[in-house]
Amino acid sequence: MQFLSDNAASVHPKVWAAMQAADEADTPYDTDRLSAELDDRFAQVFGREVAVLWVATGTAANCLALSAFVPPHGGVVCHREAHIEMDECGAPGFYLHGAKLLLAEGENAKLNPDGIAAVLDAIRADVHQVQPHAVSITQASEYGCCYTPGELAKIDILAGERGLKLHIDGARFANAVVHLGRPAAECAGPADALSFGFVKNGAMNAEAVVFFDPTVADTVRFRRKRAGHLQSKGRFLAAQILAMLDGDTWLHNAASANAAAQAIGEGARERLLHPVEANEVFVRCTAAERQALRAQGFGFYDWGANAARFVAAWDTREDHAAALGRAIAAL
Amino acid sequence: MQFLSDNAASVHPKVWAAMQAADEADTPYDTDRLSAELDDRFAQVFGREVAVLWVATGTAANCLALSAFVPPHGGVVCHREAHIEMDECGAPGFYLHGAKLLLAEGENAKLNPDGIAAVLDAIRADVHQVQPHAVSITQASEYGCCYTPGELAKIDILAGERGLKLHIDGARFANAVVHLGRPAAECAGPADALSFGFVKNGAMNAEAVVFFDPTVADTVRFRRKRAGHLQSKGRFLAAQILAMLDGDTWLHNAASANAAAQAIGEGARERLLHPVEANEVFVRCTAAERQALRAQGFGFYDWGANAARFVAAWDTREDHAAALGRAIAAL
Amino acid sequence: MQFLSDNAASVHPKVWAAMQAADEADTPYDTDRLSAELDDRFAQVFGREVAVLWVATGTAANCLALSAFVPPHGGVVCHREAHIEMDECGAPGFYLHGAKLLLAEGENAKLNPDGIAAVLDAIRADVHQVQPHAVSITQASEYGCCYTPGELAKIDILAGERGLKLHIDGARFANAVVHLGRPAAECAGPADALSFGFVKNGAMNAEAVVFFDPTVADTVRFRRKRAGHLQSKGRFLAAQILAMLDGDTWLHNAASANAAAQAIGEGARERLLHPVEANEVFVRCTAAERQALRAQGFGFYDWGANAARFVAAWDTREDHAAALGRAIAAL
Amino acid sequence: MQFLSDNAASVHPKVWAAMQAADEADTPYDTDRLSAELDDRFAQVFGREVAVLWVATGTAANCLALSAFVPPHGGVVCHREAHIEMDECGAPGFYLHGAKLLLAEGENAKLNPDGIAAVLDAIRADVHQVQPHAVSITQASEYGCCYTPGELAKIDILAGERGLKLHIDGARFANAVVHLGRPAAECAGPADALSFGFVKNGAMNAEAVVFFDPTVADTVRFRRKRAGHLQSKGRFLAAQILAMLDGDTWLHNAASANAAAQAIGEGARERLLHPVEANEVFVRCTAAERQALRAQGFGFYDWGANAARFVAAWDTREDHAAALGRAIAAL
Repeated sequence: MQFLSDNAASVHPKVWAAMQAADEADTPYDTDRLSAELDDRFAQVFGREVAVLWVATGTAANCLALSAFVPPHGGVVCHREAHIEMDECGAPGFYLHGAKLLLAEGENAKLNPDGIAAVLDAIRADVHQVQPHAVSITQASEYGCCYTPGELAKIDILAGERGLKLHIDGARFANAVVHLGRPAAECAGPADALSFGFVKNGAMNAEAVVFFDPTVADTVRFRRKRAGHLQSKGRFLAAQILAMLDGDTWLHNAASANAAAQAIGEGARERLLHPVEANEVFVRCTAAERQALRAQGFGFYDWGANAARFVAAWDTREDHAAALGRAIAAL
Repeated sequence: MQFLSDNAASVHPKVWAAMQAADEADTPYDTDRLSAELDDRFAQVFGREVAVLWVATGTAANCLALSAFVPPHGGVVCHREAHIEMDECGAPGFYLHGAKLLLAEGENAKLNPDGIAAVLDAIRADVHQVQPHAVSITQASEYGCCYTPGELAKIDILAGERGLKLHIDGARFANAVVHLGRPAAECAGPADALSFGFVKNGAMNAEAVVFFDPTVADTVRFRRKRAGHLQSKGRFLAAQILAMLDGDTWLHNAASANAAAQAIGEGARERLLHPVEANEVFVRCTAAERQALRAQGFGFYDWGANAARFVAAWDTREDHAAALGRAIAAL
Repeated sequence: MQFLSDNAASVHPKVWAAMQAADEADTPYDTDRLSAELDDRFAQVFGREVAVLWVATGTAANCLALSAFVPPHGGVVCHREAHIEMDECGAPGFYLHGAKLLLAEGENAKLNPDGIAAVLDAIRADVHQVQPHAVSITQASEYGCCYTPGELAKIDILAGERGLKLHIDGARFANAVVHLGRPAAECAGPADALSFGFVKNGAMNAEAVVFFDPTVADTVRFRRKRAGHLQSKGRFLAAQILAMLDGDTWLHNAASANAAAQAIGEGARERLLHPVEANEVFVRCTAAERQALRAQGFGFYDWGANAARFVAAWDTREDHAAALGRAIAAL
Repeated sequence: MQFLSDNAASVHPKVWAAMQAADEADTPYDTDRLSAELDDRFAQVFGREVAVLWVATGTAANCLALSAFVPPHGGVVCHREAHIEMDECGAPGFYLHGAKLLLAEGENAKLNPDGIAAVLDAIRADVHQVQPHAVSITQASEYGCCYTPGELAKIDILAGERGLKLHIDGARFANAVVHLGRPAAECAGPADALSFGFVKNGAMNAEAVVFFDPTVADTVRFRRKRAGHLQSKGRFLAAQILAMLDGDTWLHNAASANAAAQAIGEGARERLLHPVEANEVFVRCTAAERQALRAQGFGFYDWGANAARFVAAWDTREDHAAALGRAIAAL
C-alpha cells in the first residue's frame, strides 16, 4: 500500500486510449491537430483566451513560465520550501540564466502579502541587489494547502503594486480546484501563468503551461524548443492533456485523491502538521510509529525526524486509505 | 503517401505493449526497475560497460551529451549543416552556457579529418578565441550518409591528437548500423558519447544518451534534472527503449526504412544529390516536377528551389515507396 | 618602431591630468559628479538625448550593448570577421546567454544590405532556427574601412524592415569620424547603441556604451554590475572619457593616427588589401619582405601567410610612419 | 569627514607613480612585463607557487575565482550576508551559469564549521537538490571581523571532508592580515583561491585573483577574457598591484585604516555591534543620534533602523577618526 508520492502513479485508462487514438501519423512537433485544440480547450476551462504549451515535466513548465517574466538579472519571490527552490536542482537558475530565487516565509508553505512584502522591502532599489520581477506560488502548496480566491486576490494586489508578474506552480492544481470547490479561473486567480499539472493526476508525461496573456507564449515557444522540450510526436502530449480535460477526468481523479487523503487525515487528526486540503497528509509520528506502519505494509516517506508524509494519488484505493487512517489512529 | 519525415511516424506495437506493461506504479524518476536495466542492455549492444540516460528528445540528448565535455568558454566542431547548428534553436548555446559551434565543411554533411583540421588550424591558441573541446558528427548524417568504421577511426585519431572528445548524434543511428552492416560498436567507433535515437525509429518519446566512460554520466544526471528532463514516470521511457532493443526491433525497423529509401532511390538514380545509404533520399527536381509528384499524392519537403527530400520511416509501406520510386523515374 | 596595434598605446597627457584631478574622494560607482556629466556631454556630441555607461573594455561594451536587444534564444547578424565573432572568446555567448552570432559576408569586413539579407533569408521563421534580433557592424571595420552615412542608412532601412536593432562596435569610431569628415551623429547613423571606443585612442581603460533610446540603459545598468564592470572608483573612467571629449581630443588623436596610416599606405599603394581609411594598413607582402621590414626595426603582425597588418596609434610618430611607408615602397 | 566606505577612497601616490611609469607602450593584455611579474611577487607573499590574474573589480575577482570550482549545476556555501549574496546583483548566478548560493549562518558574518555543516547536512545527496562544490568566506568579514588561522583550519578540515573547495573574498584581506598580525599565508589559510583586494586599500581599479593551484588559473584566463575583463592596457592594473606590494604599502595602508577604526571604536565601546578588528565599525545608535553626528559633519551609512556603519580607509585622517570617536562617545 503505497503512499510515497503521486508522481509515479499509473496512467488513467482514458489517457491510454487517447494516446493510442493519436498514433496515426500526423504533422510533427506542435503542428498536429490535437496540439492545435489546446488553446480553445483551456479557454473553456478558464473562461478567457489563453495560450497553452505542453511540456513533459513540471520543472520544465515552471521554468519556461518564469522565463517569460524574469530577466537573467532579476529575481522571483517564492516560498522557502517551494518546489522550484527545493526540488528542481537549480533549474530556475538554468532556465533564467542565473536569476535569483528570493525566499519568503509563510505557514503551510503558502505565501502571503506580509511574507512577500518582507522580502521585497529588504531589497534596496539599486543595481547592487537583484530586483524582483515575479512571484511564484504553489497551488496546492508543497504542504497540500490551498490558496482561496481571496488570498490570491490579496497577493495579486501586492504584485500589481510592485510591478511583479504572478506565476502559479499547479503541479496539484486539480486537487486545489476540487478542494476549493470553485471554478478553475478563481483558483488560478489573477495569475499571469499557470503550470497546470497532469502527471500527478493520471497523465503519463504531459503538463500544460497556460499563459493568460497569449502573446507571452510566443517567446516561450522558442525557449521550449531550445530546452529540448519540443517533442516531435507532440500529439501524444496533447492527447494526454485533452483526455484529462474531457469529461472532467482531471477533477474526478483529483476528487478521488483528495478523498483518500481525507480518509487518512481522519485517523491522524491529532497529529496533523498541516490541514489536509489537497491530497497530502503530514503526520507527526515517531520513528517507532513509522516502523510500525511500515510493518503493516504502508509505504511512505519520512518527513524529518518526527513526521511522515503520505500522498494519495488518483488511483489510491479507498480501502487502502481507510486502512492507513485506521492504522495511524491506532498508533 | 507521406514522406515528410520519420520524426512523426507511428509508434511500434511492441513499444506500446512495453509501455502498458510498465503502467503498474513503480518508484519515480529513474529509480524504477526498467531504467535500472538500461546500462546492462546497452553494454550488451556495445560490448563494453556504458552508462545510459533516457531523455525525451534528440535535442536534449545531444546537448546533455556535449555538456559533459564542453565548458561554457569552449567550442564544438560540427558540420555546417549539423542538426545542432541548424535545427535546435540554439539549444547547444543554452545547454553549454554560450559555448560556440565551430563549423566545418564536408561532403554529404559528413565531417572528415581535413575539414575538421581546417577549422582547428584556423583557431589561434590564445584566450581571444574560443578553443575546441569536442567534435560532434551525425551518424547517419543529415543527408542520410554513413561514416564507415574506417572514417570514424580517422576522425578519432585527429580528435585524440587535438585533445577533443567525440560525440555522435545518432538520431538515425539504427539506419546507419543497418546500412553499414557492422556491429553497433563499430558504427559508434571511438565515440565518447552517443545520442542513440529511437523516436524516429518507432518509439514515442524516448532517446538514449550513451556514455562510454560511465563516470561521465554522473554530472549529466544533475544536468538532466536541471533541464527538466527527469520525468517522474521515467519507466515509460525506459520501457520504450528496452522494447526497441528487444529482439532487435531497432534494427528491423531501420531495415524497413532503409529498404523503402532504396526503393525510392532506385527510381531517382540520375537525380540523387547524395548517395542513398540510410533512410533519406535527396532528389534534384524542378518545382513543376514536385508539383507533379504532389498531384499524385506524395507528401514531402522541398529542399531549396531545385530539390526535394523524401524520408522513409519504419512504417513506410513498401508499395508506397515503390510507387514513389516509379513516379520519380517517370518524371 | 611599433605598429602592432593601437590597443596598448600610451595614455594621453590630458587623460592623465583628468584622472588625477578626479582623485579626491567622491561617491562610489557611477554616482560621482563626473559620471553624472556623461549623458549631457554625449548628447552634445550626438545632438540628441542619450544614456551613457562607462565600462573598461570594448568586449564588455559590445556585449552589454547587445544584451539590451537580444534575448538568450535570439541571434545577432555580424560580419564573419567581426571582433565579436573572432576576438572576444565567445563573450557574446556569455553575455547573451547562448544567443547566436549569424555570420554575414561583405568586402572590407563591412556588412551591406545584400549580405545581411542573405543571412536573414536563409533563416526559416520557425522555432527550430535562431531568429535574428539585431545587426552589429563595426565602424571603422576590422579592416579599417568606414561606413558612409549613406551605407548606414541602407542598413538601417533593412534592419527596420526586419525588426532588428542596430549596434555599432565603435572601437575605432573616432578614426571613422575623422575619415568620413562628418558629424559623429551621421557616422553613427541610426544605431540603437554604439560602443564608443577610447582605449585605442588615448584613454587607459574606459569605453562608453551609448544608448540612443535612454530608457534602454536602465536594464544594462544591472547587467553591468552583474558582470563585475561597475567599478567603485568609476570617476576615473568618467574622467578619461570626459578628457577625451574635451577640446575634441578624441578627434585630434584619431586624426594623427589616420594621418600616420595614410603615410604608410602611401608607400604601399600597389600592395593594399583594403583601402586605407582609418588607422590600419593591410599590405600584401611575402615572408621575406616581412623579414626585411622587421630587420629595419618595424614591429607588426603577420596577416596570414602573404600579408602584414600595420596599425597606427594616436601616438605613432610621423617620422616612424613615413619611414615605414618608404620601407614598404622600397621592398 | 567621510566614513561612508573605503571603496571610493583616493589612490595612493605610489600607485599613481607606478601607473605613470607603466605608460610607455608595452605588449597588450597580460603579455606585458609587469603582468609577468605577478606570479613571482605573490609567491613571495604566500611562500609558495601561485598563479595570479588581475581584474578590475572585486565582484569579477570573486566570481571568476568561484567559476574555477563550481559547475553550473552546483552550489557555493556562503554567509547569508556575504557580499556575493547581498551586493553583487546576482553576479555569481551570471558567472557560474545559474549555480546556487547556499546560505549559512554565523556570528559577525563569519562562517564556522557548525553553520556550514548545518547547510550541508540539509542537502539530500540526490539529483533533485543542488550539491555544494565550494565554500566562500570573507576575510575580513562583511562586519569587519577576521578568521584566525585556527578558525580557517577548522573550516578547511570540514571542506576537505566534504570535497569542497575554499574561496576567500579578500576585499579587505590586507586589513585582516594587519589585524591578525600573522603572515599572509596563514591569514589565507588553506584557501584554493583568494580574491586579494587592493581597490579599497589605495589602488584605483585592480584586484588580484590568486590561485594556490596554478593549473586552475588556465581555465580562468579564458573566462576573464570572455567576461570582458582582459584589459588591453593591462600593464596599468599590474602596476597598481605591484606598487601596493612594493615596500608593503598594502600593509601600511591597512594599518592606517585599522588604526582609524580603532580610534572610532574606542569612543563606541558600549555600542559596538561587532568587535572592531579590521576597518569597519558598526555602532548601535538612534536616528536622533545619527542626525546629531551628521550635524557635526560626519558622513556614514545607516545600518538598519538602529545602527550606523563607519568605514575607515587608508587615507582617513587620524584626527577625523579621533573626532568621530569622541563624538560617538559624547552621544
